[in-house]
Amino acid sequence: MSSWQDLCNARKRAQVAALPKHWLIDLPPDHVRDVRAVPHTCRLLSPRELEITDTTDVDRLLLNLRTAVWSAVEVTTAFYKRAVVAQQLTNCLTEIFIDRALARAKEVDDYLKATGRPVGPLHGLPISLKDQFPLKGLETIMGYAGWIGRYADADCVLVEILHEQGAVPFVRTNVPQTLMWGETYNHVFGRTTHPFNRAMTPGGSSGGEGALIALRGSPLGVGTDIGGSVRIPSAFCGLYGLRPSYARLPYANAVNSAEGQESIASVLGPMAGSLAGVRVFTQAIVDAQPWRRDPLAVRKAWQWDEYALKEHGAGGRMCFAVMWDNGVVKPHPPVRRAMELVKAALEKAGHTVIDWENHRHLELYEVAERVFAADDAHDFLTECARSGEPLIQTMSPETDAHEYALDEPFARTIVGERRHLSVYELWQLHKQKRDLRKSHLDHWEATVARTRTGRPVDAIISPVAPYTACPHGCNSDAFYTTMTNTLDYTTSVFPVTCADAELDKAEPPHAFYNHEDEAVYKLYDPQLFHGLPVGLQLIGRTLEEEGVIAMTEVVDKALKAMH
Amino acid sequence: MSSWQDLCNARKRAQVAALPKHWLIDLPPDHVRDVRAVPHTCRLLSPRELEITDTTDVDRLLLNLRTAVWSAVEVTTAFYKRAVVAQQLTNCLTEIFIDRALARAKEVDDYLKATGRPVGPLHGLPISLKDQFPLKGLETIMGYAGWIGRYADADCVLVEILHEQGAVPFVRTNVPQTLMWGETYNHVFGRTTHPFNRAMTPGGSSGGEGALIALRGSPLGVGTDIGGSVRIPSAFCGLYGLRPSYARLPYANAVNSAEGQESIASVLGPMAGSLAGVRVFTQAIVDAQPWRRDPLAVRKAWQWDEYALKEHGAGGRMCFAVMWDNGVVKPHPPVRRAMELVKAALEKAGHTVIDWENHRHLELYEVAERVFAADDAHDFLTECARSGEPLIQTMSPETDAHEYALDEPFARTIVGERRHLSVYELWQLHKQKRDLRKSHLDHWEATVARTRTGRPVDAIISPVAPYTACPHGCNSDAFYTTMTNTLDYTTSVFPVTCADAELDKAEPPHAFYNHEDEAVYKLYDPQLFHGLPVGLQLIGRTLEEEGVIAMTEVVDKALKAMH
Repeated sequence: MSSWQDLCNARKRAQVAALPKHWLIDLPPDHVRDVRAVPHTCRLLSPRELEITDTTDVDRLLLNLRTAVWSAVEVTTAFYKRAVVAQQLTNCLTEIFIDRALARAKEVDDYLKATGRPVGPLHGLPISLKDQFPLKGLETIMGYAGWIGRYADADCVLVEILHEQGAVPFVRTNVPQTLMWGETYNHVFGRTTHPFNRAMTPGGSSGGEGALIALRGSPLGVGTDIGGSVRIPSAFCGLYGLRPSYARLPYANAVNSAEGQESIASVLGPMAGSLAGVRVFTQAIVDAQPWRRDPLAVRKAWQWDEYALKEHGAGGRMCFAVMWDNGVVKPHPPVRRAMELVKAALEKAGHTVIDWENHRHLELYEVAERVFAADDAHDFLTECARSGEPLIQTMSPETDAHEYALDEPFARTIVGERRHLSVYELWQLHKQKRDLRKSHLDHWEATVARTRTGRPVDAIISPVAPYTACPHGCNSDAFYTTMTNTLDYTTSVFPVTCADAELDKAEPPHAFYNHEDEAVYKLYDPQLFHGLPVGLQLIGRTLEEEGVIAMTEVVDKALKAMH
Repeated sequence: MSSWQDLCNARKRAQVAALPKHWLIDLPPDHVRDVRAVPHTCRLLSPRELEITDTTDVDRLLLNLRTAVWSAVEVTTAFYKRAVVAQQLTNCLTEIFIDRALARAKEVDDYLKATGRPVGPLHGLPISLKDQFPLKGLETIMGYAGWIGRYADADCVLVEILHEQGAVPFVRTNVPQTLMWGETYNHVFGRTTHPFNRAMTPGGSSGGEGALIALRGSPLGVGTDIGGSVRIPSAFCGLYGLRPSYARLPYANAVNSAEGQESIASVLGPMAGSLAGVRVFTQAIVDAQPWRRDPLAVRKAWQWDEYALKEHGAGGRMCFAVMWDNGVVKPHPPVRRAMELVKAALEKAGHTVIDWENHRHLELYEVAERVFAADDAHDFLTECARSGEPLIQTMSPETDAHEYALDEPFARTIVGERRHLSVYELWQLHKQKRDLRKSHLDHWEATVARTRTGRPVDAIISPVAPYTACPHGCNSDAFYTTMTNTLDYTTSVFPVTCADAELDKAEPPHAFYNHEDEAVYKLYDPQLFHGLPVGLQLIGRTLEEEGVIAMTEVVDKALKAMH
């Protein structure tokens, strides 16, 4: 039997071999950190292919596809080439299946030619998938050496629906081992880097998607989010993203970490270079009635009146609340400035912006951490034991720290003691979680006294993380995102600005909330973060996908009107 | 400190003292088993009060209330009198608060008088509540001696909404200790009996509701259901009932057994003498947007197109499947005959009826049993330990069997070994449950090949239990109901016929599936069960409350057309 290292090396070699020789480019040297220009300078893509792949507006891509201005084969080819370039630059991919994707694209083209009709609302659109969504006949490795060689005997429900709606799933993307990191590194496929600055992490766990879409190697990707894994890479990479509420979109037959953990459920959500991508994807999946294939999927059709913001004054004069600081970890100056920009833009557009009053955030943090650790990492260790690979203890590339002994399976956080809970203890934790959710909902409803709209706050604007993309190994805090996983609030991410060493000076130290807050404060260096994207969250209510997308459109439009 | 017996005795005496002296009736002797006529013969209720309380059609009650034909005070008084009669006959009540209810009724009347408008869609309707729904200032004992003296400092969300919608919560009803029985007995309030035959159980755990509504002591009650607790008493007592899917209706701030157990969640649902009651209640609660108060409540407005059966051929020519026998426990002859009646009625009404093919029922049963026992009764024992009362081991009144030692906390079932699971083991059980749900859903979808409607089976018709109401201590099997709790299929109950010793002869023994099946077979005695109601289930899809109610209306109409 091979060692886990042998398994990983062989699999990685097979991946390299899957890249067409004529798609290999002259690579910039490792010390070149910003590789954004390479797709344009590497001469692999034709001008037309660059035009296609530079089209971030998914509505426009779909229009050109269904009117045969661009064929699905040429669009898929273009994005595939650019994805392979992105792979060479940032190591963002796992499964590469060019022939299969092109055959599928041809099928779609043939259908349009034969019938004059598109296959569905996603006709011809190449879609990248996080390494959790099985396609029949392909491996799904999800960052575990022990999963190498697991070939799926069926598509997962999401892929079934994507096919029916006309999409072309074309590539799968990298993840961290266990998925429970806001960065992207595993022993099989290695580390994914940030295309704006390869010394930085693109975030995680959907970090392969983040890097790929940021380089325009995919117009639309699907990630998953249990603590921020769609939102962190979306924000770090300057993308739009959506964390829907539990089970609005179908997870059935996707693979996952800690499967069976239903206390704070992972959800899948879109990531894209345009908000149109987020809307189009979400609606297309809901319109396919996922509840007929996924027993957990919520039977709730796309609600046009919710999208029209019927319960938010028809979108006219809304009241947003800004969460400047969650009281657990204080955001860096670029994040603060992004919130100020949003506030100004919304006010200019006629909306009201008030301060969000934090409500029991530390308790929410603790509940989330305790849920995720309720089996004391038994699931992770079980999956590692399949190959003998060690459980990774840090995302830092600086040391061999991730090969640590297994006696402390998680990085230390501000939450205390951990051990494997009994079911009864888990139930007590659920009571605490439910009471916190009720308390937080009541707190939100009570904002009606402060909004002057006759309604509670329409949505909350908050940081995604206290920082922008940061050096590998430094993304330690995920609570700005995890909070809404615990509360199950539908949450979007949208890009606002980029960090700017001139505008975002370091601030004097504040009274630190805890050691994490102190560490995050010390991380800030205006030069280090210069130029990296800053995204923010828009937090709505549970199962309010239509409304959250529509309100994000309002914010996005307001921001664009400021330029 | 008092013994738990002293606590219970004192509480029971206080309950008796809460009955107005002039509402006490001459009781029939204990050997009189059928007490249905007593409300009419006891002379406590005036002819008008009898007319009001004999009105099972909730639409008509509401019409008369909102047009002031009947005042809320007189309707509440009439039902309260009849409830107190029911209490004296069947011991169905827990909390009795006449003055408070009448004051509330007066408030409703005054509002109508002052404004000319009803308070809401439930204007003036007295509604009984299972002993899990706290009202501010009242105790909620839920069958535990140790909970005596727990006064609520706020209404639960359901009660808040009922008030806003105009209802008059007027009484609370009895439950079994732990709630995990299909009968109704606890140490505090004692045993509830069946008004058709007091040697029989009205079912449980919402058995107080069953007995009360069957005697027309309430027009509409609210029960809860985690394994059949709304449906069993509904069927046993000849009522309509609904088990909605998880979290369609708001459970927040209600109390519960095994709180925090979220693997197979308890739901609340209506029970009534008319299907109108089920519809009106469900819609009124959903229309109140419970998700604004209950963080778990599904954000899904009442869907008129689902109620119009848009996805079921507009209700025109549907295909139902009958589950004659689940292959775990075979139903008694009256239940079989009820299914034949439904089949004939539906066919006469132009619908198709095919046989349901069972799919992995025993596995589903095992998952449910293992979830309910996942803490090895630690929750139940903890609640019992508050007072020192023993955990009840049987619902039989014949022996002191329910005072057994605690070393075997559950009655023996066909499911094997039990012990307190770890969280990781629970997660594995969740995977099994999820896979079974997926498999069952696919099985249902695949019926499209057999229906000739172009759709899968529209709904399943099945037994609620393998028997009608049975002698106290004999309701051993709840799997016909629990199956849909595990699968989360929205399920209604409707009355079909009554057991008839002439028509429902005993059958020769079949090859028994297991010891439970054999015990159930041996229980049947045509004379013993003669005259008891037979109800059936209509099983629809997850979160399909509107459709299930509408399809039940179709079935009910078809049955009534046969008379």
